[in-house]
Amino acid sequence: MNFLNREIDDFKVNAYQAGETIEVSKADVLGKWSIFFFYPADFSFVCPTELEALQDNYQAFKDADAEIYSVSEDTEFVHKAWAEASDKIGRIQYTMLADPAGKLARMFDVLDEDAGQAYRGVFIVDPDGKIQSYTINNMGIGRSADEILRTLQAAQFVREHGDRVCPANWKPGDDTIKPSLDLVGKL
Amino acid sequence: MNFLNREIDDFKVNAYQAGETIEVSKADVLGKWSIFFFYPADFSFVCPTELEALQDNYQAFKDADAEIYSVSEDTEFVHKAWAEASDKIGRIQYTMLADPAGKLARMFDVLDEDAGQAYRGVFIVDPDGKIQSYTINNMGIGRSADEILRTLQAAQFVREHGDRVCPANWKPGDDTIKPSLDLVGKL
Amino acid sequence: MNFLNREIDDFKVNAYQAGETIEVSKADVLGKWSIFFFYPADFSFVCPTELEALQDNYQAFKDADAEIYSVSEDTEFVHKAWAEASDKIGRIQYTMLADPAGKLARMFDVLDEDAGQAYRGVFIVDPDGKIQSYTINNMGIGRSADEILRTLQAAQFVREHGDRVCPANWKPGDDTIKPSLDLVGKL
Amino acid sequence: MNFLNREIDDFKVNAYQAGETIEVSKADVLGKWSIFFFYPADFSFVCPTELEALQDNYQAFKDADAEIYSVSEDTEFVHKAWAEASDKIGRIQYTMLADPAGKLARMFDVLDEDAGQAYRGVFIVDPDGKIQSYTINNMGIGRSADEILRTLQAAQFVREHGDRVCPANWKPGDDTIKPSLDLVGKL
Amino acid sequence: MNFLNREIDDFKVNAYQAGETIEVSKADVLGKWSIFFFYPADFSFVCPTELEALQDNYQAFKDADAEIYSVSEDTEFVHKAWAEASDKIGRIQYTMLADPAGKLARMFDVLDEDAGQAYRGVFIVDPDGKIQSYTINNMGIGRSADEILRTLQAAQFVREHGDRVCPANWKPGDDTIKPSLDLVGKL
Amino acid sequence: MNFLNREIDDFKVNAYQAGETIEVSKADVLGKWSIFFFYPADFSFVCPTELEALQDNYQAFKDADAEIYSVSEDTEFVHKAWAEASDKIGRIQYTMLADPAGKLARMFDVLDEDAGQAYRGVFIVDPDGKIQSYTINNMGIGRSADEILRTLQAAQFVREHGDRVCPANWKPGDDTIKPSLDLVGKL
Amino acid sequence: MNFLNREIDDFKVNAYQAGETIEVSKADVLGKWSIFFFYPADFSFVCPTELEALQDNYQAFKDADAEIYSVSEDTEFVHKAWAEASDKIGRIQYTMLADPAGKLARMFDVLDEDAGQAYRGVFIVDPDGKIQSYTINNMGIGRSADEILRTLQAAQFVREHGDRVCPANWKPGDDTIKPSLDLVGKL
Amino acid sequence: MNFLNREIDDFKVNAYQAGETIEVSKADVLGKWSIFFFYPADFSFVCPTELEALQDNYQAFKDADAEIYSVSEDTEFVHKAWAEASDKIGRIQYTMLADPAGKLARMFDVLDEDAGQAYRGVFIVDPDGKIQSYTINNMGIGRSADEILRTLQAAQFVREHGDRVCPANWKPGDDTIKPSLDLVGKL
Amino acid sequence: MNFLNREIDDFKVNAYQAGETIEVSKADVLGKWSIFFFYPADFSFVCPTELEALQDNYQAFKDADAEIYSVSEDTEFVHKAWAEASDKIGRIQYTMLADPAGKLARMFDVLDEDAGQAYRGVFIVDPDGKIQSYTINNMGIGRSADEILRTLQAAQFVREHGDRVCPANWKPGDDTIKPSLDLVGKL
Amino acid sequence: MNFLNREIDDFKVNAYQAGETIEVSKADVLGKWSIFFFYPADFSFVCPTELEALQDNYQAFKDADAEIYSVSEDTEFVHKAWAEASDKIGRIQYTMLADPAGKLARMFDVLDEDAGQAYRGVFIVDPDGKIQSYTINNMGIGRSADEILRTLQAAQFVREHGDRVCPANWKPGDDTIKPSLDLVGKL
Repeated sequence: MNFLNREIDDFKVNAYQAGETIEVSKADVLGKWSIFFFYPADFSFVCPTELEALQDNYQAFKDADAEIYSVSEDTEFVHKAWAEASDKIGRIQYTMLADPAGKLARMFDVLDEDAGQAYRGVFIVDPDGKIQSYTINNMGIGRSADEILRTLQAAQFVREHGDRVCPANWKPGDDTIKPSLDLVGKL
Repeated sequence: MNFLNREIDDFKVNAYQAGETIEVSKADVLGKWSIFFFYPADFSFVCPTELEALQDNYQAFKDADAEIYSVSEDTEFVHKAWAEASDKIGRIQYTMLADPAGKLARMFDVLDEDAGQAYRGVFIVDPDGKIQSYTINNMGIGRSADEILRTLQAAQFVREHGDRVCPANWKPGDDTIKPSLDLVGKL
Repeated sequence: MNFLNREIDDFKVNAYQAGETIEVSKADVLGKWSIFFFYPADFSFVCPTELEALQDNYQAFKDADAEIYSVSEDTEFVHKAWAEASDKIGRIQYTMLADPAGKLARMFDVLDEDAGQAYRGVFIVDPDGKIQSYTINNMGIGRSADEILRTLQAAQFVREHGDRVCPANWKPGDDTIKPSLDLVGKL
Repeated sequence: MNFLNREIDDFKVNAYQAGETIEVSKADVLGKWSIFFFYPADFSFVCPTELEALQDNYQAFKDADAEIYSVSEDTEFVHKAWAEASDKIGRIQYTMLADPAGKLARMFDVLDEDAGQAYRGVFIVDPDGKIQSYTINNMGIGRSADEILRTLQAAQFVREHGDRVCPANWKPGDDTIKPSLDLVGKL
Repeated sequence: MNFLNREIDDFKVNAYQAGETIEVSKADVLGKWSIFFFYPADFSFVCPTELEALQDNYQAFKDADAEIYSVSEDTEFVHKAWAEASDKIGRIQYTMLADPAGKLARMFDVLDEDAGQAYRGVFIVDPDGKIQSYTINNMGIGRSADEILRTLQAAQFVREHGDRVCPANWKPGDDTIKPSLDLVGKL
Repeated sequence: MNFLNREIDDFKVNAYQAGETIEVSKADVLGKWSIFFFYPADFSFVCPTELEALQDNYQAFKDADAEIYSVSEDTEFVHKAWAEASDKIGRIQYTMLADPAGKLARMFDVLDEDAGQAYRGVFIVDPDGKIQSYTINNMGIGRSADEILRTLQAAQFVREHGDRVCPANWKPGDDTIKPSLDLVGKL
Repeated sequence: MNFLNREIDDFKVNAYQAGETIEVSKADVLGKWSIFFFYPADFSFVCPTELEALQDNYQAFKDADAEIYSVSEDTEFVHKAWAEASDKIGRIQYTMLADPAGKLARMFDVLDEDAGQAYRGVFIVDPDGKIQSYTINNMGIGRSADEILRTLQAAQFVREHGDRVCPANWKPGDDTIKPSLDLVGKL
Repeated sequence: MNFLNREIDDFKVNAYQAGETIEVSKADVLGKWSIFFFYPADFSFVCPTELEALQDNYQAFKDADAEIYSVSEDTEFVHKAWAEASDKIGRIQYTMLADPAGKLARMFDVLDEDAGQAYRGVFIVDPDGKIQSYTINNMGIGRSADEILRTLQAAQFVREHGDRVCPANWKPGDDTIKPSLDLVGKL
Repeated sequence: MNFLNREIDDFKVNAYQAGETIEVSKADVLGKWSIFFFYPADFSFVCPTELEALQDNYQAFKDADAEIYSVSEDTEFVHKAWAEASDKIGRIQYTMLADPAGKLARMFDVLDEDAGQAYRGVFIVDPDGKIQSYTINNMGIGRSADEILRTLQAAQFVREHGDRVCPANWKPGDDTIKPSLDLVGKL
Repeated sequence: MNFLNREIDDFKVNAYQAGETIEVSKADVLGKWSIFFFYPADFSFVCPTELEALQDNYQAFKDADAEIYSVSEDTEFVHKAWAEASDKIGRIQYTMLADPAGKLARMFDVLDEDAGQAYRGVFIVDPDGKIQSYTINNMGIGRSADEILRTLQAAQFVREHGDRVCPANWKPGDDTIKPSLDLVGKL
């Protein structure tokens, strides 16, 4: 099923954040932009570098009023253990959701039921809980934190200036296009 | 439904390519990598800039042994008319598929049935016809030709060197990671 | 299903009319007679001559208190582009409906689902939105604007003078027949 | 259901032709063009004038290698009685099918089940038994024998010269159009 | 299904009676006895003699407070034409129902669906609309007006004197039998 | 369900005939005409007079190569006891079928399930076991042996001279009608 | 289905009792004990001796406040005829139920549907209409009136002295057993 | 369901016989007559006296080539314990079937599912395994061993001399009746 | 189905307790802890030793405010007989439930339907009637009363001190563990 | 569903054993006894003590030709990380199965779907893959390694000496009981 404009379901999961165990539900993510970033498993390979790159850009996401939620099918106990065992993970400040029951991965349809792991999906959700953009890569294909940020900003621009459209590869500050029938055949 | 590893269905559509009308079927796309790039409508706004950006990178995609197929719900007659009316479109060398019956947009689940237009989806398909990565943006959010190319190259690397994994934001020439249990907890 | 006396469904589509984009819904067509004239595609071959012939007779239709709606599976952007590219289309004053989602073509059962184009159907709809006459020709068989006008006038006569019947090939001013059992066996 | 390109079903009915009772089946109508012309009832009003107009043009239909079959829900006994009672009907040379069981009217979906009478439908069937054009008028709206003949000839032209298209209101001898991508935007 | 004691359904059909077109419904037949007399078709062979025999006995039926309704699958137009064409039919005074839609023939289950004609059924219906006796003969086997009249009178006697039973071949004036257990084994 | 032309089902029942108990099955009735004459019950009232009238005409039925089978829901023991107790029944020579299980009455749909008795139905069955005529009277309405015989003879005439039709009230020796289109409108 | 403790259904049948025809319903049998005694057919063989033996014991059943109902699938007319024809049956004073429709035999599940006769079942029903004991013998195996009476009396004893149990072959006056856990292992 | 003439199903149960545990299956009971005698429970009250009475008549049953099987829902362990605890049970020589799973009680439809005990049913089964007679008494109503024996002998007589019928209360040596139509009305 | 946290259904069964017959229902077991201890059959082999061991520990269970219910598919009569016949069983003070109808064994899914015996299941039920622990052994594998007692005490500890967890093989007096994220990786 | 005697399904999961990643399938567990020991999660509280107790008894299990498989819903990566982080876990020599997809927990019906964790179930599986004993404790109730070992040994004894039964709390060397009917009532 196509996820665009679809509102996320209710959910409540445990999470690990900077040394603490917390609970995160749908109510917590509404009201600001959020990035759900799925990765296959804690203590595995590409994942640390992707998670690290997100941490490196975390301030820019926060400046854009967006929150980052990484998600794997591990428990919050394992997130904590990983943070203690790995320096790269240990410095992560955003929220690491624990999804051992597969609730989130099934909601976003990125659960590999046979392996019990999530595909590499990233979902940009607006303050109303509706999905505005998503990318799903096969196992082994890493994602770009820069591109996620750029797409987030474009989605925010469209939400705010509905009547102007972002051209390809648009970044904040670039020109945008105001739709008009007069432009038909002119671009 | 999650599209990863799913083989595309049989299809046959008309297309416009550099002044000619041709027919393109599944058989034509097998054997090399292909990019299916959906956009809402000919003679509309963001679309030309996205299509133009793809044309600017077309040589790099061809160097990577990949073919680009843009797709809209317009006929091949309209593609030709647009090419004649717009300089930007007129210089496009890749294939513009005509999907007025919505066959391709339904196959990739990017058809807005109410509007009769396609969402901004881009699908990277391997030489076996299986989808390895896809991104779907809401109307108005343009895509980055650079990111499509980078993801293509990562997917190609995984296909060729299955035992090495591309870290986040990897580009050809960067280091890769060879999975090993010894690395658990080391990254 | 037989369409006679069947009331058209609710609908709302974009349209192009003499340089402007408008929206047309069922409410707009009720209250006067309307002609829904389907053709396969913009920028194709027979279509311009059929559309031109309708324009040549447009004043007669308006004199008969009827509105003409041409319909193809193209967008309003394409209608505009076609009007700009073709002198014949450029002078059309009636409303050109845009049906890229196939809503109207499915309502009147004239959609060739495989081609994403409409068959050559023409429907005469009375002021109550009920179909009084329709003709459907296969691809390639053009229609006669004169015959559409003649049939419209006969349908209008029957609606106004229910107890009189129009004989074959009747035109305004010809004799009509008032049904009576005395006529049994006399004609 | 749309009847275009649909092959007629098997059937066998009694008929009256020029004083004789005969049986007509699908096998009899294959191999040449045929016109199925439905009317509500024998001994009623508009019907004789429509049937008379067809007889007046019968030679032209025969010259076009087409056969005319009128159809009502009356028996062959009634057709004969009508022919004896009415001079207009008495001079008809084409075949008058008897459909008291409603088989043909149901096959072409023109049976008014409540009244046990046929709507005014006319179907042009090609030598393969496939419908190429049809018109259905509400009770009281007569048809034009000239227009039926013109449409038949256009359908025959398309069947013979598939790559040429008949423009609006085309008649034998008029110019036709040979489809070509070069014509896009030129008509 | 056995029709005894079954009440006829609602119906409304056109009819021909002595030069006039009328409408007959269930309400018209309630309150007196009625004979529904089905025959295959107007302008056919046995039928006139059967219909003529009923007319010869019509006064006796009226004296018995019963109405006769002949029924065929022809229209009222055809009944009129037949009455004008045939002296035998022309003198009929009872009502000739027109059942081209097969409503009555289906209600009494005497429709030959393949031929679109009625079997030779005759139904005696009491003033409450309930069937008291019926006979159905195959095509070609004529019925006796005398026997219909005799059976009607026996049915009327039973309705009026429920406790007396009519012996075989009873006619008005004959002895009847009053049921009593004392008669067991005495007759 | 209409019983005309329907072949009777297989059956096997006990019977009483002139002092003996026999078994009668479908095989016994095929090859000649047969009359199935249902009556409500042995030792009841109208029944003896109807059965007596049939016996009085038995020779005429045998001359017409027809066999008579009376049927009630009593056993063969009861038929015998009745024959011994009643002179009228005692002289019956035709076969009295015993149907306590209701097999025959259900086959011909004349069983009053509530009373466990048969309605007064009479069925004329041809040598192929197919029903050619039937009459069903409500309780209390006796039947005429003469009319049964007349109808049998008419049915036999139609079977032998299929192309001639028996007019109303026809009896052997009367004129018959040979169907011909020339007769349309002449009778 | 096991019939113990099952309440008999509503019923109403005709019956013959000592020269009179009466109607018997469930209401008539409630309030006292009743014996339903099924036999195959009137005028048959074992049956008279069984019925005679019941009559010989009838006074004892009445003394026990029980009524006897014999049941066969014959009508009340046949019961009367049998009583008149047979001295043994003629002296029966209890009620002979007529069950030609099989209502009672189906209620007690003793109908041989193929033969239309009842199996030799006997049912002891208490004053609440609930079955307390039943015996079903195959055709040919007669029953003992003495045993029916003995079982009735045991059932009556249990109903009245619920806490005492009748040992095997108990008859009125014999010792009974009062259940007590102390008796476990003592008998 | 009526059990007459029904063949018992396959079964295999444990049993206790005179100090030994054995297994009894359908194969063991075929070939001779058998009595299945159900009682509610070991160590309960009426049961011992009924079981004792059967033992007292056991030789007569064996002389009649019949085997007795008592059945309760207790295990073979409990049967043995009962035999050891009770002199009356201890002297039983016939087979005591153990049916804790309810297989036999369900097969003969005498299981009180709520109590987990059997109703007092007794079934006489012929050498083909088919039930010829059965009696079912409610809890508390004991059975007569004499009557079981008498019924067995009558069933055996019918099996051997099918054409003679046992009158009521027949015992070996009494007269029997040979069915003949001549006897109708004579008994 | 997993039984943990599942509330037992309503039930009511007979039981034997120290010489008396009582009735036990769900209401009786609520409000304290209960042990349901299933064994195959009375008068069998392992069972006495298991039941004896429970009796030896009965005081400890009572000290823990728990009641013991042994269950087999035998009746209360058999329990009593066993108690009288066996010294080991005779000294049992806890309640022995009688389950001949299999209600309890089916509720806990430990019924061997083929044998009519229970598997060796033991269920620990809390005062709310919810199952907290259960063990099911195949036939022949005895259980340990000590382990049942130990598990009961652990379950009681968890119910009372929800936030402390009992380590493996915990017994009252041993240390317990208070869950805390700080312990992750420390144990 | 009761799991006794049920054969485990095919499965294949990753596992961690003493520093290595291996794959374990059904084929690997057949041929010897196996213990499947489920616990909720790695890096949690009771679990280490239970797992440690198993390791302390591991040699005894191996001496009994049995293999231990602990199972949690964590990946093999997490098992390894835990082993590296915890001394207690680090010394485990038996196999730790990784069940992130819940395959094993669903097979044994111990998955808490809401929490994505396993209940504390332990299953003793024989060399044919059939379950012989199982215990399921609620969260928080630890298990006893001693009791698991004792039950294993009893199950092995029954498998080898089928005709001897282990009394309650039996351990190797204790007496066993050879079943014999002579023992009924003696134990």
